[in-house]
Amino acid sequence: MFVLNSTLENDSIPLMETDLCLVRLINDARYPWVLVVPKIPDVSELHELSDAEYAEVMKTARVLGGILKDSFDADKINTAVIGNMVSQLHVHIVARRRDDAAWPSPIWGVGDMEPLSDKECAHRLETIRVGIGDQI
Amino acid sequence: MFVLNSTLENDSIPLMETDLCLVRLINDARYPWVLVVPKIPDVSELHELSDAEYAEVMKTARVLGGILKDSFDADKINTAVIGNMVSQLHVHIVARRRDDAAWPSPIWGVGDMEPLSDKECAHRLETIRVGIGDQI
Repeated sequence: MFVLNSTLENDSIPLMETDLCLVRLINDARYPWVLVVPKIPDVSELHELSDAEYAEVMKTARVLGGILKDSFDADKINTAVIGNMVSQLHVHIVARRRDDAAWPSPIWGVGDMEPLSDKECAHRLETIRVGIGDQI
Repeated sequence: MFVLNSTLENDSIPLMETDLCLVRLINDARYPWVLVVPKIPDVSELHELSDAEYAEVMKTARVLGGILKDSFDADKINTAVIGNMVSQLHVHIVARRRDDAAWPSPIWGVGDMEPLSDKECAHRLETIRVGIGDQI
């Protein structure tokens, strides 16, 4: 049975759910940052997904990348599957700006997460949901 | 016209080429690490690719992830599109081990690249090419 990893759960907020995936907003004011987590137990690598699962996970990630780029005036989208500390397969999609806290480095391991205010959290969730529309 | 970015070119060695992509081995002894670079001019984001291009690029990345995992006894595959410093779209696929130089951090920005010996370079190229076979 699929259970969302507790670290991923604690670090993020539900944004939407598809038949295959959870989409979660990371609770970090520094970057608009979402996770796509396929609801499949015991999978940690992209190549362990079936062809159909892989296509759907990557489509979801791609749609979110386009939305984050446009909605948050990003200079670059960073998309990554790392999982060295949390092995449950999850795809990061992060909107980066030249003036953000880690630029031009990747964000992982740089500084500490800064919780979103309720207002900013609601704004990000709404912005991304409107962007998604019926795309995924 | 597509021209491979000079930083990517200088940091890597040709491994194979498909109709759409260059596959290059990064010249760094610390990690088995390849790049997939679509031969499309002026593209920096995954969502700028057409559906067919995206599917092919991601298939290539996925096949390489499976090969790196199995061939180099990796503990985790890291797959990432970052591009904050080199905007030309390129996908990193990196074989990570718990005893490697950066574990559990991502590899980008950690220490300096260590050029491969001719012998190790030839070994990596051959291993990955054999793994690819006719998969891509």
